[in-house]
Amino acid sequence: MAAFSFNKLVIFGVGLIGGSLARGLRKRAGAAGRIVGVGRSARSVERAVELGVIDEAAALDDDAALARALQGADVVLIAAPVAQTEPLLARIAPLLDAHTVVTDAGSTKSDVVASARRALGERIAQFVPGHPIAGCESSGVEAALPDLYVDRNVVLCPLPENVAQDVERIAVMWRATGACVRQMSEAQHDRVFASVSHLPHVLSFALVDQILATPDAALKFSFAAGGFRDFTRIAASSPEMWRDICLANRDALLAELDDYTRVLATFRAAIETSDGAALEAAFARSRVARTEWQERGGIRPSGDIAAK
Amino acid sequence: MAAFSFNKLVIFGVGLIGGSLARGLRKRAGAAGRIVGVGRSARSVERAVELGVIDEAAALDDDAALARALQGADVVLIAAPVAQTEPLLARIAPLLDAHTVVTDAGSTKSDVVASARRALGERIAQFVPGHPIAGCESSGVEAALPDLYVDRNVVLCPLPENVAQDVERIAVMWRATGACVRQMSEAQHDRVFASVSHLPHVLSFALVDQILATPDAALKFSFAAGGFRDFTRIAASSPEMWRDICLANRDALLAELDDYTRVLATFRAAIETSDGAALEAAFARSRVARTEWQERGGIRPSGDIAAK
Repeated sequence: MAAFSFNKLVIFGVGLIGGSLARGLRKRAGAAGRIVGVGRSARSVERAVELGVIDEAAALDDDAALARALQGADVVLIAAPVAQTEPLLARIAPLLDAHTVVTDAGSTKSDVVASARRALGERIAQFVPGHPIAGCESSGVEAALPDLYVDRNVVLCPLPENVAQDVERIAVMWRATGACVRQMSEAQHDRVFASVSHLPHVLSFALVDQILATPDAALKFSFAAGGFRDFTRIAASSPEMWRDICLANRDALLAELDDYTRVLATFRAAIETSDGAALEAAFARSRVARTEWQERGGIRPSGDIAAK
Repeated sequence: MAAFSFNKLVIFGVGLIGGSLARGLRKRAGAAGRIVGVGRSARSVERAVELGVIDEAAALDDDAALARALQGADVVLIAAPVAQTEPLLARIAPLLDAHTVVTDAGSTKSDVVASARRALGERIAQFVPGHPIAGCESSGVEAALPDLYVDRNVVLCPLPENVAQDVERIAVMWRATGACVRQMSEAQHDRVFASVSHLPHVLSFALVDQILATPDAALKFSFAAGGFRDFTRIAASSPEMWRDICLANRDALLAELDDYTRVLATFRAAIETSDGAALEAAFARSRVARTEWQERGGIRPSGDIAAK
C-alpha cells in the first residue's frame, strides 16, 4: 500500500465521515501533514480540535480564515450533506490553489457532478467525485473512528476532465485508511446504490408507514417479530438524509422502483393463481443468492479493484 | 402461573416447535406426564427419544401403535408443516378420546380451521387452533430448547364450538413453557401476520430476485452493505415453507400486498414530483413508530393478555 503524504488536508464537515478520514490518516498515513476542519462556525469544529481529530478549525463565514485554510491544501474533502455541496464548492472555487484536488463523500453522484460543474466552472478538472461506503448509524465527530474505512469500499467516479494523477492522489488517500477503492461512472454508481441501498430504504419506510395507517396498527406492532425487526431496521434512518437521497437520485431510484413493482406484480400473480412452483422457484433463487452473498463475506468488499 | 399437569401429551412432528414444547414442559411443568412423539416412521422420532425430549416414539403408519399413543391423551399437538394438518387430523379423528384436546402450531389459521372442519367433522369442538410465535432459523429436534417460548407470544384462535375449559387447558400448557398466550379470531390472526411477517418476506425475496434478473447483479451484490444485509436476511428463509404460507394465507396476503403497492405509489409520486416535505413526513412517521417499537421491547410481547 502506497503511503499517503500530504502537507495540508482540509475537511469541510468534521463528523463521522470526515472525522474518521482524519483519524484513519493519523493512525496509518506515512507522513501526515496538517489537517484543517471547516464548519459553519468555528465553534462547530472546535470540538474536533479538542478531541485531537484535526489540528486547526476555520469558520466558513470568515473570509480570511477560509482563504488561509485553503492556501497550500493538497486535498479538500467535502463531507457535508449533499444539498450543501454546490454552495460549498461555489464558496471555495475562487480560493483554490491550482494544485489542490477536491473530492466529496456524497451518497449520490450524478447530482453532485452537475452541482460541481455549475459551482467550479473551468476548475472542474480539480474535482474527483467520491463516495466512501461506511455505516452511518451514529454520527458526529465523537463517533469518528480510525478504523471506520478498513476493508470498506470507497467509490470514485472520475470525470473526463480529471488527470490521472489527481484521481490517484484521492485513491491513495482512501487506501491509506484501509479502504478498497473502486471506480465506476456516476450513472453506474447511482444505479447500483439505488438498487442495493436507496430502494430498500424506501421499501422499509413504506412497510412501517402502511402499518401505521391501519386501525389495528398497535396490535400488528405487538406481534411483529424478528423478520419485521430486521426488515425495518433501516426505517429508523434519518428522514432528512433519506429525503435528500431520494430527491438527489430521483431518476435512478424511480427506475428501480418501477422495476421492483413489476417483479412484485409477478409474485402477486403467482400467489393469486396459487402457482406454488413459480413462487418456490423465485424464493429458492433468492435464497441461494442471499446465502452466497453472505458466504462471500456479506458487507465486506470482494477485493481492491482500484484505479491503476 | 397455573401449573400444567397432564397424563399424556402426544406431539405429531418432534422438531424445533414440538421438541421445544416438550423440553419446556419437562423443565417447568408442575406434574409432567408421559410425552409421546409421532413421526412418519418410528425411526424419525427415535432421535427425540435418544435425546430425552420425549418418552416414547410411535409411527404414523402403524395403526395399532397410533391408537395406543392416542389412548388417554389429554392434549395432542400437531407441529407438522401446515399442508400435512388435514391428512393428520383425518388420520387421528376416529382414534381420539372424547376428552382429548387437539391444537396445532401452524403459521396460518383460516386454512387450518377449514382443514380441521373437514377432517374432524363433529369432533371440531375438540380442536383449539394455535400458533406459537417463535424463531425458526434452525430446525429439527436437535435445535429444540426448553426456553424457546419464554416471553414469546402464542396466539390461540378459539372456535365457537370450543368449550372454555379446553381453550384454557391449551393456554395453561403454553404458559407453563413461559409463553404469553393471546387470543384473536383466525381472520384477525391471518391479517396481522400477513402484514408484519408474510408481506415482509415476500418483499425481501422480491428485492433479491429483482437484482438477480439484472445484468450487473454481481456488481450490485458487491456493493450491498448493512441495509441490504438486514432487509434481505429473511430472503434466505425456506422456499418451501414460504411458498406454503403464501398459498395458505393467500387472501390476507393479497390484500396487504395491494395496500402496500398503494402506499408505494404515493411514495413514488412524492419522489417523482420532488415533494420533499411529503417524503420527509412519511419517513419521520416511520422512524418514530419503528423507534418506539424497538424501545417498547421490540420482539418481546407487551404482556400476557391471555384467555381469562
